[in-house]
Amino acid sequence: MQSVSEIGEFALIQAIGERLRSSDTAEVIVGLGDDSAVTAPDGKPLVSCVDVLVQGVHFRTDWSSAHEIGRKSVAANLADIFAMGGAPKSLLIGLAVPADTKVAWVLELAEGIKAEADLVGAQVIGGDVVRSDQIVISVTALGSLDAPKPITRSGAQVDDVLAVAGRLGYAHAGLMMLSRGFRSPRAIVSAHRVPQPPYELAALAHSANSMIDISDGLLSDVGHIAQSSGVAINIDSQKLVVTEELQAMASAFNGNALEWVLQGGEDHAFAATFSNSSQVPEGWVVIGAVTAGEGVTVDGETVAQSGWDHFK
Amino acid sequence: MQSVSEIGEFALIQAIGERLRSSDTAEVIVGLGDDSAVTAPDGKPLVSCVDVLVQGVHFRTDWSSAHEIGRKSVAANLADIFAMGGAPKSLLIGLAVPADTKVAWVLELAEGIKAEADLVGAQVIGGDVVRSDQIVISVTALGSLDAPKPITRSGAQVDDVLAVAGRLGYAHAGLMMLSRGFRSPRAIVSAHRVPQPPYELAALAHSANSMIDISDGLLSDVGHIAQSSGVAINIDSQKLVVTEELQAMASAFNGNALEWVLQGGEDHAFAATFSNSSQVPEGWVVIGAVTAGEGVTVDGETVAQSGWDHFK
Repeated sequence: MQSVSEIGEFALIQAIGERLRSSDTAEVIVGLGDDSAVTAPDGKPLVSCVDVLVQGVHFRTDWSSAHEIGRKSVAANLADIFAMGGAPKSLLIGLAVPADTKVAWVLELAEGIKAEADLVGAQVIGGDVVRSDQIVISVTALGSLDAPKPITRSGAQVDDVLAVAGRLGYAHAGLMMLSRGFRSPRAIVSAHRVPQPPYELAALAHSANSMIDISDGLLSDVGHIAQSSGVAINIDSQKLVVTEELQAMASAFNGNALEWVLQGGEDHAFAATFSNSSQVPEGWVVIGAVTAGEGVTVDGETVAQSGWDHFK
Repeated sequence: MQSVSEIGEFALIQAIGERLRSSDTAEVIVGLGDDSAVTAPDGKPLVSCVDVLVQGVHFRTDWSSAHEIGRKSVAANLADIFAMGGAPKSLLIGLAVPADTKVAWVLELAEGIKAEADLVGAQVIGGDVVRSDQIVISVTALGSLDAPKPITRSGAQVDDVLAVAGRLGYAHAGLMMLSRGFRSPRAIVSAHRVPQPPYELAALAHSANSMIDISDGLLSDVGHIAQSSGVAINIDSQKLVVTEELQAMASAFNGNALEWVLQGGEDHAFAATFSNSSQVPEGWVVIGAVTAGEGVTVDGETVAQSGWDHFK
């Protein structure tokens, strides 16, 4: 019998989705398979999503403080709400911790959760705390829909421009530094500990035809837009922002900064497509274009994707 | 520094709540500390809650099938929505599983989740799947408020009658059988594997002044009502349903069936208080009364509570 590591995260999610799918009721506007769900329990759209963070997979308690872990677990989730054109309002937190976890650690985690939620005016309204062997944090965010309609992965149109908002490659570089025993440079290491999704830039992008939170990596997540929308997307590598800071790190570690920008996960930047350049909001950088076809190319060439798969 | 096992589940939850509490916005009708939260993101009340189930704590894969575990994880959560006077509509599932978990097991879990959701017409609208060392299932339920107002733990009034709906003691007896290596009697063992909250009876109880899902045990959860409402509650043990099936098991194992009914957790029956006996809906059994004072008594006597604490 196949294990989940053999089938991989995306095939597993698809197979689960097939088991769960009901005949969608009129209440479900966006169901399984996007950054967030959108339902209309009472006519008004409700945007919701859940993210689960696991000790040793998404964070390490020796690399990040409880406060940083709290902020990160909420940031990943809020970004999913914004990527749908939503505005997060409330959070439900499920927390599983070993019995010998220090109370002070849990309370610092709670303060980190609140600090990140406060950035966007969201509030924790409920939770559950249970015992486990490994720390697991489940965050559910609920929000309103602020865009005129949900901004899904599947709305990209041929001739759209592709743009990004937020830093790319930093979280990956930070993870690499931490895993080699470094605790600096601070800006880079912090990017892994606490991603800084540009929430306010996502909120400006309500004219986008499609949008996604970049959690797996730019290539991988733009690939999700291309696949869901049935289009091809080309990225112009000249237009990607590769900072000197990142270049310097890559040189020092014999790495490729452009590859980090293209493939690094967990920055929680945003990618979106817009009907034309004039619609691209301030703060967003145009990096490519949508054409007929399928798949993602960089400068016209196909690049092997190595986006994050939880089970590979 | 104190660990979470030293402080205990309830003190931990209270301390976390103090860290998280914001000045409640007008949108939050019921916040932290009840079975579910109630918010009104767009004027209409939204009922939401999260439950986390952990392998080895809430279920064992050698005692329960994946289908049973799926049903149980959803049942616990739906019961919380009903206990608030809500009607569940949609679910978000966070799933953390080891990389060597069989795909077939995960898909059977998904089918169990769907089967229980179908019982009440709820639908899975989103989720997240990640890698972990131990299986952890986080279920978030969202629903509408069907009662005229939220039925909290804090609404019990002096002179109310206390009533329960659903089986008590069965899940505990089932757990005891399984932990001693038995796989029968089936009705009892099944009660641990898949609790059967009497959803339809909870939906009839919208005239209740207070209601709670009995997850920790009758004494413990009625204690939550008494404490939150600032009242005393007495349970008349003569009125508790102790079935012959449960009595026979208790005799065989030198146990006390009444104690199982009073203290056993995880049945997800409901306890509620009503202004007077005439309001108690069909299918509910009156078992006690609310008076001025504090604490819970059985036949006028204080009983040491041993309700489930995750960290003790």
